[in-house]
Amino acid sequence: MAAEIVNPRTDTDQPPAGALALDIDPVFALHRGGKLEVAATVPLLDAADLSLAYTPGVADVCTAIANKPELVHEYTWKSQVVAVVTDGTAVLGLGDIGPEASLPVMEGKAILFKQFGGVDAVPLALACTDVDEIVETVVRLAPSFGGVNLEDISAPRCFEIEERLKERLDIPVFHDDQHGTAVVTLAALRNACTLTGRTLGALRAVISGAGAAGVAIAKILVEAGIGDVAVTDRRGVVHAGREDLNPVKRHLASYTNSAGLTGSLEEALAGADVFIGVSGGTVAEHAVAAMAEGAFVFAMANPTPEVHPDVAHKYAAVVATGRSDFPNQINNVLAFPGIFAGALQVRASAITEGMKLAAAEALAAVVADELSPECVIPSPFDPRVAPAVTAAVAAAARADGVARV
Amino acid sequence: MAAEIVNPRTDTDQPPAGALALDIDPVFALHRGGKLEVAATVPLLDAADLSLAYTPGVADVCTAIANKPELVHEYTWKSQVVAVVTDGTAVLGLGDIGPEASLPVMEGKAILFKQFGGVDAVPLALACTDVDEIVETVVRLAPSFGGVNLEDISAPRCFEIEERLKERLDIPVFHDDQHGTAVVTLAALRNACTLTGRTLGALRAVISGAGAAGVAIAKILVEAGIGDVAVTDRRGVVHAGREDLNPVKRHLASYTNSAGLTGSLEEALAGADVFIGVSGGTVAEHAVAAMAEGAFVFAMANPTPEVHPDVAHKYAAVVATGRSDFPNQINNVLAFPGIFAGALQVRASAITEGMKLAAAEALAAVVADELSPECVIPSPFDPRVAPAVTAAVAAAARADGVARV
Repeated sequence: MAAEIVNPRTDTDQPPAGALALDIDPVFALHRGGKLEVAATVPLLDAADLSLAYTPGVADVCTAIANKPELVHEYTWKSQVVAVVTDGTAVLGLGDIGPEASLPVMEGKAILFKQFGGVDAVPLALACTDVDEIVETVVRLAPSFGGVNLEDISAPRCFEIEERLKERLDIPVFHDDQHGTAVVTLAALRNACTLTGRTLGALRAVISGAGAAGVAIAKILVEAGIGDVAVTDRRGVVHAGREDLNPVKRHLASYTNSAGLTGSLEEALAGADVFIGVSGGTVAEHAVAAMAEGAFVFAMANPTPEVHPDVAHKYAAVVATGRSDFPNQINNVLAFPGIFAGALQVRASAITEGMKLAAAEALAAVVADELSPECVIPSPFDPRVAPAVTAAVAAAARADGVARV
Repeated sequence: MAAEIVNPRTDTDQPPAGALALDIDPVFALHRGGKLEVAATVPLLDAADLSLAYTPGVADVCTAIANKPELVHEYTWKSQVVAVVTDGTAVLGLGDIGPEASLPVMEGKAILFKQFGGVDAVPLALACTDVDEIVETVVRLAPSFGGVNLEDISAPRCFEIEERLKERLDIPVFHDDQHGTAVVTLAALRNACTLTGRTLGALRAVISGAGAAGVAIAKILVEAGIGDVAVTDRRGVVHAGREDLNPVKRHLASYTNSAGLTGSLEEALAGADVFIGVSGGTVAEHAVAAMAEGAFVFAMANPTPEVHPDVAHKYAAVVATGRSDFPNQINNVLAFPGIFAGALQVRASAITEGMKLAAAEALAAVVADELSPECVIPSPFDPRVAPAVTAAVAAAARADGVARV
């Protein structure tokens, strides 16, 4: 008979003795004690169980892995568990709040991984912000994980950290703030095109925000064949003639903005087909009004969209936001659980551009038969999403030669 | 409606397609896919749940922690989760098999933490063996964890790693191979004394093995008031006159062996009251026969005790081993779950010597009313153990001034 353990998180509906006054808020009451637990998937009720799951039996499994390293994927949870790594420098819209304060978000991410992708995830909020230190730390952690989801790390450090980890590791590394957002945005844009009888190649897009999301969206749109895309930061369009660009923006300028724009966001929007807001700023109504006929407005800043959907609808054919209380929510949860589930399923050594594009295609296809201006992207709770993305990503991994089973 | 996820680990009793031939062995079949999962402790079934557990609600919790850092203990799982950290250099009796091959043991440890202590634990097998690198890595991970259990790190590196982490961190750091073994050994020895009407102060003990366990057992026996204890390594008794001692053994020599022994293990055993084997070597029957009348023989090497219990019983009053198939199993699982549960319960900043001694006392007391030569220590599955150890450790943390609630 095993010891019976009281779990204060689940054994009562009452706030525990000593609960703080904050707990009268349902958000805080829900967060008491955190949102995660680690559970055994095997029984451990008696000495016979112990001899299988622990000593002496476990020694045989260790020896087998020592002799044949790839067995770690078969007989441990490595290929089912992802590290959710942050340094707490760019948490939601809150900024650099440090590792401890970022933990509620990372726990939330972990439950989304499990709920939507069946992927186990462990929050690891690091007490370091130096690029070298973060890279070395994650490299040392890699034996225990099947993948690394980077989260809420500020730009431009996030780009270098991801690139260096991809070079060093043979497991998928994926900065969700970049690529999750990019995949879902591309999916919505594809469906907006289908709905309105247009092609990506015929569109000129303007992205407000040259941080993690803006840079990644620009990259995937170019890969997908967008006609043109310009990215703006606080000083206007990112273009090669600017002398204030960091290396990431300099590179961005080299493959975007083929129209050669040099002005402000408002100037760039004049006649543009697509607005994609990931900046947190605001866009004046007259600027939206000056966009091309039948424009797409994706005002994704949270909680306040760059332009209110009601205003955008006066001029745009399709409007999307980052909010759950308007139609067409661009929500990363539509992408990252299935992307990692697919990558882990085939033990991918990396997440390639092809896998991201395939995820966007699959995500768009889920609602292909029910497209409308209010439905260019599925709901986060649509049960078709994760299986579709998972299958597409696994197939793309095989096609790209990074699958190992 | 949430996506329904198939879990290949739990949804079928059949081996999955592609299962290896190894799976005909029940140990391997049980280990397929690993032994752990991360689960949500909060619901996530619809958009309302999502807005509480994730955005936008979670931002309020992050902000509260950023403003008042100690709230991380209230509103995340930090104070319920322990990192089980290894570098894979001293795994069971298998030695330096590397991080991946150590994972099955670390997963096993994690399920023991949960089953017996209600403590969540995450296996972190590191791809580095340098002391500085291990220390820095664990320091960087500390924001996400309420404690650190060091595991299967080879001596003498394990001593320095633990000491330096204790200096750097304000959460409990505990090398279980040292202190778990020491606590359980002390508990068994206390009960052996009670059973035979003796006192610790009247005993002369000999420990075979000057690694992690041997050093820690010697230390706790001295703290508990043992009459004398000598530790032997492959070259015989560790004494101050030897010139081949590393710094750890040199320090050990300074506070053990007050009898001034200088010879072999066999010579040291002549007339000794207690033998404690943590070496994996063998002890000849004539050496056991030469011990004092009514001796205690704790032959804890696994799977082969230093002296077979049947042989030991011919001469000894109390016999213990590390095996589950003989009486008096010295098993760390009697200690570490309750020690961490108690420490986390009061948010201890460290695990003090007083907390370890209190754990041993409490563990011994569990079977105080049922002592016999076959019962000087409870069974690992005795449901009284973890609550008793937890309460004693929490109380000792308060007494020692390291409790924070």
